[in-house]
Amino acid sequence: MEMLTPTQEEMFTKNKRKLNHAGSYEGPDTSKSTWLLFSPATPDEAGSLARFLSIFSSHGVNLNHIESRSSARRPGYEFMVECEHGSGNFGAALEELTQIAGYLNVISRNYKDNISTVPWFPRRIRDLDRFASQILSYGAELDSDHPGFTDPVYRDRRKYFADIAFNYRHGQPLPHVDYTKEETQTWGAVFKKLTELYPTHACKEHNHVFPLMIENCGYREDNIPQLEDVSNFLKDCTGFTLRPVAGLLSSRDFLAGLAFRVFHSTQYIRHHSRPLYTPEPDVCHELLGHAPLFADPAFAQFSQEIGLASLGAPDDFIEKLATCFWFTVEFGLCRQEGQLKAFGAGLLSSFGELQYCLSDKPELREFEPSVTGEQKYPITEYQPVYFVAQSFESAKEKMIKFAQTIPREFGVRYNPYTQSIDILDSPRQMTDLLKQIRTEMELLLGTMEKL
Amino acid sequence: MEMLTPTQEEMFTKNKRKLNHAGSYEGPDTSKSTWLLFSPATPDEAGSLARFLSIFSSHGVNLNHIESRSSARRPGYEFMVECEHGSGNFGAALEELTQIAGYLNVISRNYKDNISTVPWFPRRIRDLDRFASQILSYGAELDSDHPGFTDPVYRDRRKYFADIAFNYRHGQPLPHVDYTKEETQTWGAVFKKLTELYPTHACKEHNHVFPLMIENCGYREDNIPQLEDVSNFLKDCTGFTLRPVAGLLSSRDFLAGLAFRVFHSTQYIRHHSRPLYTPEPDVCHELLGHAPLFADPAFAQFSQEIGLASLGAPDDFIEKLATCFWFTVEFGLCRQEGQLKAFGAGLLSSFGELQYCLSDKPELREFEPSVTGEQKYPITEYQPVYFVAQSFESAKEKMIKFAQTIPREFGVRYNPYTQSIDILDSPRQMTDLLKQIRTEMELLLGTMEKL
Amino acid sequence: MEMLTPTQEEMFTKNKRKLNHAGSYEGPDTSKSTWLLFSPATPDEAGSLARFLSIFSSHGVNLNHIESRSSARRPGYEFMVECEHGSGNFGAALEELTQIAGYLNVISRNYKDNISTVPWFPRRIRDLDRFASQILSYGAELDSDHPGFTDPVYRDRRKYFADIAFNYRHGQPLPHVDYTKEETQTWGAVFKKLTELYPTHACKEHNHVFPLMIENCGYREDNIPQLEDVSNFLKDCTGFTLRPVAGLLSSRDFLAGLAFRVFHSTQYIRHHSRPLYTPEPDVCHELLGHAPLFADPAFAQFSQEIGLASLGAPDDFIEKLATCFWFTVEFGLCRQEGQLKAFGAGLLSSFGELQYCLSDKPELREFEPSVTGEQKYPITEYQPVYFVAQSFESAKEKMIKFAQTIPREFGVRYNPYTQSIDILDSPRQMTDLLKQIRTEMELLLGTMEKL
Amino acid sequence: MEMLTPTQEEMFTKNKRKLNHAGSYEGPDTSKSTWLLFSPATPDEAGSLARFLSIFSSHGVNLNHIESRSSARRPGYEFMVECEHGSGNFGAALEELTQIAGYLNVISRNYKDNISTVPWFPRRIRDLDRFASQILSYGAELDSDHPGFTDPVYRDRRKYFADIAFNYRHGQPLPHVDYTKEETQTWGAVFKKLTELYPTHACKEHNHVFPLMIENCGYREDNIPQLEDVSNFLKDCTGFTLRPVAGLLSSRDFLAGLAFRVFHSTQYIRHHSRPLYTPEPDVCHELLGHAPLFADPAFAQFSQEIGLASLGAPDDFIEKLATCFWFTVEFGLCRQEGQLKAFGAGLLSSFGELQYCLSDKPELREFEPSVTGEQKYPITEYQPVYFVAQSFESAKEKMIKFAQTIPREFGVRYNPYTQSIDILDSPRQMTDLLKQIRTEMELLLGTMEKL
Repeated sequence: MEMLTPTQEEMFTKNKRKLNHAGSYEGPDTSKSTWLLFSPATPDEAGSLARFLSIFSSHGVNLNHIESRSSARRPGYEFMVECEHGSGNFGAALEELTQIAGYLNVISRNYKDNISTVPWFPRRIRDLDRFASQILSYGAELDSDHPGFTDPVYRDRRKYFADIAFNYRHGQPLPHVDYTKEETQTWGAVFKKLTELYPTHACKEHNHVFPLMIENCGYREDNIPQLEDVSNFLKDCTGFTLRPVAGLLSSRDFLAGLAFRVFHSTQYIRHHSRPLYTPEPDVCHELLGHAPLFADPAFAQFSQEIGLASLGAPDDFIEKLATCFWFTVEFGLCRQEGQLKAFGAGLLSSFGELQYCLSDKPELREFEPSVTGEQKYPITEYQPVYFVAQSFESAKEKMIKFAQTIPREFGVRYNPYTQSIDILDSPRQMTDLLKQIRTEMELLLGTMEKL
Repeated sequence: MEMLTPTQEEMFTKNKRKLNHAGSYEGPDTSKSTWLLFSPATPDEAGSLARFLSIFSSHGVNLNHIESRSSARRPGYEFMVECEHGSGNFGAALEELTQIAGYLNVISRNYKDNISTVPWFPRRIRDLDRFASQILSYGAELDSDHPGFTDPVYRDRRKYFADIAFNYRHGQPLPHVDYTKEETQTWGAVFKKLTELYPTHACKEHNHVFPLMIENCGYREDNIPQLEDVSNFLKDCTGFTLRPVAGLLSSRDFLAGLAFRVFHSTQYIRHHSRPLYTPEPDVCHELLGHAPLFADPAFAQFSQEIGLASLGAPDDFIEKLATCFWFTVEFGLCRQEGQLKAFGAGLLSSFGELQYCLSDKPELREFEPSVTGEQKYPITEYQPVYFVAQSFESAKEKMIKFAQTIPREFGVRYNPYTQSIDILDSPRQMTDLLKQIRTEMELLLGTMEKL
Repeated sequence: MEMLTPTQEEMFTKNKRKLNHAGSYEGPDTSKSTWLLFSPATPDEAGSLARFLSIFSSHGVNLNHIESRSSARRPGYEFMVECEHGSGNFGAALEELTQIAGYLNVISRNYKDNISTVPWFPRRIRDLDRFASQILSYGAELDSDHPGFTDPVYRDRRKYFADIAFNYRHGQPLPHVDYTKEETQTWGAVFKKLTELYPTHACKEHNHVFPLMIENCGYREDNIPQLEDVSNFLKDCTGFTLRPVAGLLSSRDFLAGLAFRVFHSTQYIRHHSRPLYTPEPDVCHELLGHAPLFADPAFAQFSQEIGLASLGAPDDFIEKLATCFWFTVEFGLCRQEGQLKAFGAGLLSSFGELQYCLSDKPELREFEPSVTGEQKYPITEYQPVYFVAQSFESAKEKMIKFAQTIPREFGVRYNPYTQSIDILDSPRQMTDLLKQIRTEMELLLGTMEKL
Repeated sequence: MEMLTPTQEEMFTKNKRKLNHAGSYEGPDTSKSTWLLFSPATPDEAGSLARFLSIFSSHGVNLNHIESRSSARRPGYEFMVECEHGSGNFGAALEELTQIAGYLNVISRNYKDNISTVPWFPRRIRDLDRFASQILSYGAELDSDHPGFTDPVYRDRRKYFADIAFNYRHGQPLPHVDYTKEETQTWGAVFKKLTELYPTHACKEHNHVFPLMIENCGYREDNIPQLEDVSNFLKDCTGFTLRPVAGLLSSRDFLAGLAFRVFHSTQYIRHHSRPLYTPEPDVCHELLGHAPLFADPAFAQFSQEIGLASLGAPDDFIEKLATCFWFTVEFGLCRQEGQLKAFGAGLLSSFGELQYCLSDKPELREFEPSVTGEQKYPITEYQPVYFVAQSFESAKEKMIKFAQTIPREFGVRYNPYTQSIDILDSPRQMTDLLKQIRTEMELLLGTMEKL
């Protein structure tokens, strides 16, 4: 392989990154779990759960999980069962259930041939643990042109990081890693180059947060910050958390994490031989590019809205949303006080493209999800087109409007108290939501009268 | 000590409960921490933190904690420092700080003689760990008339539970306890008697949730549920969690926990010799009386509003709020479909008073915080007066209106993402809150158009 | 008849006032008009109106009015017909209509024996013209104990005023009246006495507005203001207008006017023989007592809410609302900066009771519509009980909550653009209302960001 | 003058229309009135108006109008005076006033050289009467190429119509006109041709309303509807009203009318010699093109938002808004159920362009005010570019967002109760607005719970 110039090197950095973050294509579904949410037709039907469960057993369908809760839709209870794929006659059980249930929602990884089935999405934050078994390629496998391909020490190291992530479960502290001296030097080289550009090239939010990360999270040239410290800091700022990822997630899964304000992050670092090059996201990309902005409330909300929009969306909209993610969170520009600035992590972690994107070479368009989501883009060279957002707030509003065009028979809302997704599809939930808004309005009014 | 009739016994159950839950009086402040929140007068002042810190060092004031964050009030940063009490010349430092800060808020346990000082309250959920050192009487100490006073085994057991709670820290799993056969029998006796009354005496919300607790949390006559299981269930329902408490908390601290949807709960059980009697709250009171209703969204919100109202409130309002807590969460009645029902935990855990409260003997008044908060009440006998709420939603609305009458120069809002309290005192925060309301409205509207 | 002391005289002033304003009892319904609002079952049914009309003609039911409009409830049209009472077989026509209509609402003066019929109420501001034919007693008839009973000149004058009002139609300028010198002297006597008390006895809103009425409406001791000038001023302030009334309106009709921000006002003045006495409302009561407060935005809203609550309400609630009107708009007190003040027009126009009501003699209770609405009251003496409002805003909020307890299958909203009442009973209208709220929020947010 | 083909004829119809509706350029200001809104620095300053007035008299400034009202911004009063242009030393008076006023707003036709002066706009609906003296060219003057130029009867007729409009004042009934047989025939020719196209070419809202106008307003081939009937119908539907106009209004004045839901309409008809041609708007354009859509609530709101945006806006934004008006209300297209439809009045009143605009010849772009407002357009030929709106609701939202970018130090809100514009520039008004929103929310919530 011939020697690459730094610029060429950086061009390649996007080669695979897309695969790991929101841009990857749907992979093979090894675990086709199907969830059923249902409630009895009449609320106070005694012993209704038992009656429902007998349907499954009579058709030989095994249930991996059974949950009973109060229904937000009607006065009675609601049940959620997870059916083991391939066990018994699922179709017959479903048909029987359909006839006696007052409410029924089928959520499944196996949705493509089923018109009334909603594509599977996590409903509780701990459901994100299931992504581990859905990884498209395990992080320890390197392509033959990877700078570390022939370095057995590096490959071991990658295996070590992949295993950490694979075994991680929600609620555990993020594993502390002792980086080697070589790894820290690689970080230092990247850190030094990029921090020179930030004051002039990064958006004001990034520059505002960066000093706080130096102070609170150990961002230094001679120290690779621990994910745990960064995640705790973000949690205090906006509730965002980092979660280690063992390999490539599908776009659908990656975006779903954002709905919970969870960002799947790598923990390993690029190969030391080429500090300014990496064919996939690494800890430099995550911590220098992504992390600071997740501490910004408006940016955090915008990112979460992309995630919420993706839950249960059809495949074509997943692709549009992943493309919007690409042109904002990864490669977004914004205009601040008349000047163009970068806020995309792919730019903020690339010494070359960060300079290029603000030059007069690329084409600029205004961010508009319905248009941006259709834009094709190359992944092995600098972007020919960038989209410019007016502000994170404006981008968020546009994303919300865009989300309303997704064909989905329900609204979704993240409940940060229960760390779960509310599926909104009943008048009663509308009334409850309105009551919450009223409470917020009352707080706003009461406080305004004090000022 | 003569033998008490069951009714007499139960009368005494309230004797001390008040002290442990929201009704206790402010005890001696052993740890008078003072927090200062401040920001520079001009947002972009470089090195402002260093300059501020030098003020403290020059006056010999030690700082236990230093925190720098983005300000929600203005474009720049904000700092929070915790000053060690008694170190250096705090007054002089404060005076100097006042002159150069653009924003300054003094929050202190030592507020009584300081007109511009806000009574201390926890700002992050992990600050609740500080209550452990503020306990009024350690849970292992028993009064001489306590049924277990002369039982060394019971006293050891109480010490064991108190130690568990004392050492507990936020984020840890709630300690699992192996209850003895004797303890389980005590629970069983109470469980059996009360569950006979619930269908006719308890409010519909309690009866709605109770079967779910049987199914999900191990509520059975022969099993004392684990706090962890109950807490996890509540977290899934409303975000409420339980936290073990080693002894008596002040009203101020106890109520503050509710602002975070945290309920301080005992874990020990009453003495086996008198299963229907306890001079203080125990696990029967907590799990049968309190826990089920925290799974109800409207009740959870109402409870949290009491907590939010208490943060930084003057002492007289803390007492009013504690009294409101007493007449609702502990001894509240409501009218449902024309019938009087009990929802207070003190009633739902007392076989005698649960019957008495719905009889024609006590006086009934409508719950109205400004009036209810002034009501005197006996703690060693059945209540002569009960207050009746129209609904939890209505009680919540009234509490919010009442909270607006508390002399406090800021609004408070719980941010469930960051699990922290936002102190609202600037126009910028109002605008941000309005933006969030707009987002909620947009979701509501988008979803209504789908229905 | 023996001579009355001034105090005795004033006591009698309330004797009949109640009958004319909101407190009068439902009188005989001479004109039992029935309105039908309906729309076809399928929106785009061509020629549906013709088909509907043929139902009426085939049953011999005459229609006084036919209106076709766009429906706010569904995509198609909506029709409103007014059926002539007693013509044809109305019952049969209604039955046939019920079967083919997609939406049907029966609004009738003849509602008492018809369970699904909504008591008649005006839907457009010009419908108020219909009240003229519903007057309970014509203003020119005087009781034998009326001070002007034996004064033929006064009786002629009363007839003159009654005729003016009787012939008045919406949209016409309010008739200008040349008051006699004697009449102006009567006004002057009342004006002089009362304006001495206002600074100390009237609420701050009344004292705030009064100088504006002097400046803009000709309020002077030597001039009786013209209704037209007062009405125009009020229109500019809050949109309230005055409308001359020829005699006693039923409570239902009188309150309905308030829903349109229309206040039915007398124009004649009391008999000159006893300037401080009047057995019924006169122009002194209206212009000194009522008019100033209708210029206050919060008071105007509160008054309108009573009116809106009354539309289509059952008779018992009309009585409760009339009683609430009595204890607020007529005899209300409020507490301002710790001091009791009067805002009721019956107080502000009575030299004696204005002093009495702030003394320590009467009993004071807090205004709470559900309680206040049940209170009995004497009409020939000073009130033994007054209700105290915290503020007009608070009274308004309480009235809105109270209105929600009225058994009525729809919500009502005044549309000030079309000067008509929207009957809200469909999800589509909810969505439209939400969109309007969103627009207001957007305006609020946009403006807050400018401040 | 050579004969024009029908297509050519129609092309010319837009020649002058632009001048009369929102597209005309600012003309010479003959009446440079200046309004001052101000309030004392301390609210309760007694006699403050007198003190202020003495400033003007001492500087020889004549006041045409003096108004005192309650202030919405602060507890006290507010004054509005209209200064006679050219009288006394206005500058000196203003300077003195500035120093003692607590609030001061200068609103003037003479704003161009005064940086702190807001361009004049009507504040009450009756202020629209002032436009009569601002007309750019009197309606009776015809250009030499006008089809009626040499027809003395037609010219007399035009003079007649112009005089009617010139003398019209707010609140008067719209003058009834007896159209001649010839005029009615002209109308009939236009009516017949256009109504053939509507079912396939007009947007659904136009087609929905049109039958109602036939039924309620006398729309017939053999009858020219009276403005009064149309205006009354619109008032009942959305509160829009028509107002006769004597000639060309400036864009600023024309748009300002929309803020009040007032549409300035011609009443004369084109010359009978060429029924499908008119070089300026006439009653066919107004009643067939414009009127029906003003009966649609969303369209009415959208139109009003353009009007509100224009109030006090700088000249460049007036031009952008007029351009937006051109590309929507005059020449707008929309997409409905996948098909392109016309809603602009210029299209709906032009037999030729209505067909052309839906052909594949013109270029289509999405309506986006910031872009659309910059678009140049020809006025003597069919439009080469049309803008397509998603819906009136969406267009309204975009207009509101766009309005927020207009440099204006206040928000504006139309108060339909008082038919006046509220200038929003104080926290107190924000709180009041929030209270109104709360009331609407309460109504929404209360009604939703009934459905």
